[in-house]
Amino acid sequence: MHYPEPISKLIDSFMKLPGIGPKTAVRLAFFVLEMREDDVLDFGRALVNAKRNLMYCSNCFHITDRDPCMICDDSSRDHTTICVVHDSKDVIAMEKMKDFRGLYHVLHGSISPIEGIGPEDIKIAELLKRLADDTIQEIILATDPNIEGEATAMYIARLLKPTGIKVTRIAHGLPVGGDLEYADEVTLSKAMEGRREI
Amino acid sequence: MHYPEPISKLIDSFMKLPGIGPKTAVRLAFFVLEMREDDVLDFGRALVNAKRNLMYCSNCFHITDRDPCMICDDSSRDHTTICVVHDSKDVIAMEKMKDFRGLYHVLHGSISPIEGIGPEDIKIAELLKRLADDTIQEIILATDPNIEGEATAMYIARLLKPTGIKVTRIAHGLPVGGDLEYADEVTLSKAMEGRREI
Repeated sequence: MHYPEPISKLIDSFMKLPGIGPKTAVRLAFFVLEMREDDVLDFGRALVNAKRNLMYCSNCFHITDRDPCMICDDSSRDHTTICVVHDSKDVIAMEKMKDFRGLYHVLHGSISPIEGIGPEDIKIAELLKRLADDTIQEIILATDPNIEGEATAMYIARLLKPTGIKVTRIAHGLPVGGDLEYADEVTLSKAMEGRREI
Repeated sequence: MHYPEPISKLIDSFMKLPGIGPKTAVRLAFFVLEMREDDVLDFGRALVNAKRNLMYCSNCFHITDRDPCMICDDSSRDHTTICVVHDSKDVIAMEKMKDFRGLYHVLHGSISPIEGIGPEDIKIAELLKRLADDTIQEIILATDPNIEGEATAMYIARLLKPTGIKVTRIAHGLPVGGDLEYADEVTLSKAMEGRREI
């Protein structure tokens, strides 16, 4: 015998989470035993509710508890602009900024030949469908600034060329609060390239 | 709006765990959304079951799903020896070793004047009660090899002196697979002090 069954099951569940190895799982499981019963019940319910009550918005594919999502359903937002992002976490990052008042489109992935992810594996066709009714005037490509994100942005930009819709890419440059000395060469070169008159 | 409510509740629950900050909590919550529904249900059940179905053995205070625990209830074990440890995780570490066939006593803490934990705050009185019927012949003090653990061991050793029961302390020395070069002075000095003829 090592652990009583209820705790070994809990350890197994914790170990299924990313970045949690056997030792952390044991530590978390023992922590749960010391937690208030209410908190543990809430945790259990939160897990099941998150899995059961969340879905993807049928319009923008952002994660939501109702369809269409709050963003797509908000008539005070600018319905002529779509910001295209990699996943739902990016929508949340953008929403925290509070500056952008348009809509989103979540691709749920990036084009990556190395991982065998092609344009048909992410929500690009669904993006094209949204452009059919001519209300969209600008597509902002806010995919990640890495190889896969750039490739995805390039692919979509080329695909949308014939439609005449304005397609923009978010700026690359030095992060605010960063240190020029520690910036990598590619970022620095992009920052120079994107310089603006002040 | 930031997150749909089901996911923000899940993030809050994850953030109650030790060592999990807001960013990790978001990552784990989104991971749960991608998990198989069965695994999520198992996780939720495991949390609640661990909290509800586990208790402390009324004899040794090890965590258990039945009272007395499997170790105290196992007649094939040596009921004349008690190994005294800091917490249930230590029992598990000892049991993994498979060499020790005696019983345990879990103190659930160490004496620490700095944190205001005195002998009456840990299960020392309960240990004395177990010694009343004269079956115990040896108490092995396996508290942690740090200041609090040593103080606790010293306290118990002095307390048991008048009973005449044999009281031993587990050995200090170099960890197996370790490197003498990197051992700290105190460990090295303990290792020299505890040297044995071969």
